[in-house]
Amino acid sequence: MLETARSLLTPSRRSDVPPFMVMDVMAAAARIEAAGGHVIHMEVGQPTASAPRTAIRAAQAALETGRVAYTSALGIPSLRARIARHYRDTQGLDLDPEQVVITTGSSAGFILAFLTMFEAGDRVAIASPGYPPYRHILTALGCEPVLIHTGPETRWAVTPEMLLQTHRKTPLKGVLIASPANPTGTMMRPEALKALIDASEDAGIRFVSDEIYHGLDYAFPAATAAAMSEHALVINSFSKYFCMTGWRVGWIVAPKELVRSVERLQQNLAISVPTLSQVAAEAAFDGTAEMDVIKHGYEENRQILLRGLPAIGFDEILPVDGAFYLYANTARFSNDSLAFASEMLEKAGVAATSGVDFDTTRGHHYMRFSYAGAADEMHEAVTRIGTWLKAL
Amino acid sequence: MLETARSLLTPSRRSDVPPFMVMDVMAAAARIEAAGGHVIHMEVGQPTASAPRTAIRAAQAALETGRVAYTSALGIPSLRARIARHYRDTQGLDLDPEQVVITTGSSAGFILAFLTMFEAGDRVAIASPGYPPYRHILTALGCEPVLIHTGPETRWAVTPEMLLQTHRKTPLKGVLIASPANPTGTMMRPEALKALIDASEDAGIRFVSDEIYHGLDYAFPAATAAAMSEHALVINSFSKYFCMTGWRVGWIVAPKELVRSVERLQQNLAISVPTLSQVAAEAAFDGTAEMDVIKHGYEENRQILLRGLPAIGFDEILPVDGAFYLYANTARFSNDSLAFASEMLEKAGVAATSGVDFDTTRGHHYMRFSYAGAADEMHEAVTRIGTWLKAL
Repeated sequence: MLETARSLLTPSRRSDVPPFMVMDVMAAAARIEAAGGHVIHMEVGQPTASAPRTAIRAAQAALETGRVAYTSALGIPSLRARIARHYRDTQGLDLDPEQVVITTGSSAGFILAFLTMFEAGDRVAIASPGYPPYRHILTALGCEPVLIHTGPETRWAVTPEMLLQTHRKTPLKGVLIASPANPTGTMMRPEALKALIDASEDAGIRFVSDEIYHGLDYAFPAATAAAMSEHALVINSFSKYFCMTGWRVGWIVAPKELVRSVERLQQNLAISVPTLSQVAAEAAFDGTAEMDVIKHGYEENRQILLRGLPAIGFDEILPVDGAFYLYANTARFSNDSLAFASEMLEKAGVAATSGVDFDTTRGHHYMRFSYAGAADEMHEAVTRIGTWLKAL
Repeated sequence: MLETARSLLTPSRRSDVPPFMVMDVMAAAARIEAAGGHVIHMEVGQPTASAPRTAIRAAQAALETGRVAYTSALGIPSLRARIARHYRDTQGLDLDPEQVVITTGSSAGFILAFLTMFEAGDRVAIASPGYPPYRHILTALGCEPVLIHTGPETRWAVTPEMLLQTHRKTPLKGVLIASPANPTGTMMRPEALKALIDASEDAGIRFVSDEIYHGLDYAFPAATAAAMSEHALVINSFSKYFCMTGWRVGWIVAPKELVRSVERLQQNLAISVPTLSQVAAEAAFDGTAEMDVIKHGYEENRQILLRGLPAIGFDEILPVDGAFYLYANTARFSNDSLAFASEMLEKAGVAATSGVDFDTTRGHHYMRFSYAGAADEMHEAVTRIGTWLKAL
């Protein structure tokens, strides 16, 4: 490459984000299927079901009228009000609709939240294992992610002690917690979450609560951080419980003091959120009966795996509480979960995700199984993996 | 506010983005309309027409099938191929579909481009007057916007001399140019654009071409920077020519060397672009006959204003070449275009945008008129403004 071309074409250092390893698994699965093979997909974190019929009908009706214009940057007012009502109905929380900001999925919610709450150079704690984009979005925006390593002994939860110990070593500006968590599917009890928020805010650490898996709780009802603190910022989405991944619509519940900043950032960074998706999202709340049936399917899948996987040798699995993930220790079978994932796909026809995507240091001993598929697939997956492991 | 609350609730400095002044005009217009008054809207930069019927039908058909899942981060392959074909059909350019990245409107295109091409601290030149989010997105991402002040003497264009002079004073990492431009509606001749790109890249300055108003060219055909340099990055959108603002879908044409970085950023910052919008966008290319009728309406509007406004005293207007904007000098009437806009709305019932949104230093002598409305509204606007000015 010529010198000029190099100076014009080299990507920035900050865009040097590690790839998702699971992409290789997905590509390999596609090759097997193209060659006529059959793969059970437990690698992707998205429901196989569709949005509620109410949502689809609302989008269809909006298309009949034709024009799909910008909305106000904060979102369609009736959708913001509907989300506030949802908190009243499900959590008994009286929320001002002005605190609800519609976002282009939780992805844009993170960008808006981080830019509003944190300066470049600020340190923000996240749990490891955790959702990989947390650290990559923070890094792209000039913040420094600080990993708090969690383990099965706290059900993968960050405790007040762990947070404050980290804070003493490397002063934190914020912390981001998800419950139910990805990749582990574990949840914090409301009182544990409240204790963590209190400890965080008493120490001057801003609290961000990723509640994208709320609604998918099996062990006990998930409680929102918005009911526990007026200082916490909540991020949520229609992607998981409402099965609306490709619509890219979510929301933030922000402290009133931050809403104006979020609004001006959204005006400039996005103009507004996809209009049809907002219309559909509002109607989705009328489709919860349909979504609850799907949720019960996940609960059934969860039981199948919690019974089936230990029987074939996965003896270290926590009784996951929510979401549609199960994080299994595979150290008994392999020290390299990337290789384990490749082999399991090749030999057993089951695609799942290596823990390395979620925890670069200890993830080679773990696999994440997503159980958002059908119950008969779960049975079949256990059978296939069991047969393969026995033959090893 | 208690000390703790303040430390938890103060917005970051980087989120302190100036508001759009035009929002005040829009709010005042809404109040007038709510009170039964009639307002001609020339303040908003969006078409009043709908997406092509082909696009709407494609979205409806996709909804029939139900599931709206994530797509790959770079976008639906057939849409990327269709956009590449569009460049072959309209510009004779043979483009690899791998260089086309689908984005959530041009807004997300800017974020991905800036993060991929520039580090925090890098200086990027933009023209003033210009689209306000340029500087606010750059600032939010830690870059330093460097304003190059343009005037009617160069038809609001940045020349190679102006760019290099700025570069000598404050070394630049990049420059962003729009042609047709917002708010001025002026265009650069292909040979002038090519000369600017050459001068830029010879000096090691990365070139970003905002081509969102391509397709809306009246004076001569707009030419893409992608045909002039293999190092330039192009940003475009379905919002303007295809009237698809609320769908939030656009694209980047990136040098091959940058695509992988853009892909990994998109995976992390957005996951994927709204799926229905991508499906509709692909079908929009079959609706160009319908869109050309709308474009001819803008051309008619443009003629009405270019004849009508000078006759009522706006004697400094450039014969705008593209987009649907006209940037008029109002110094003859007022030294405060914000007040001028308020009065014109109140007294004449015509809403337009003060130049202050686009040029904080000289914009108080200018107004931007958007002519994306109907022809009879343009006639009526000229009559109303003329009557009002005469009575002053």
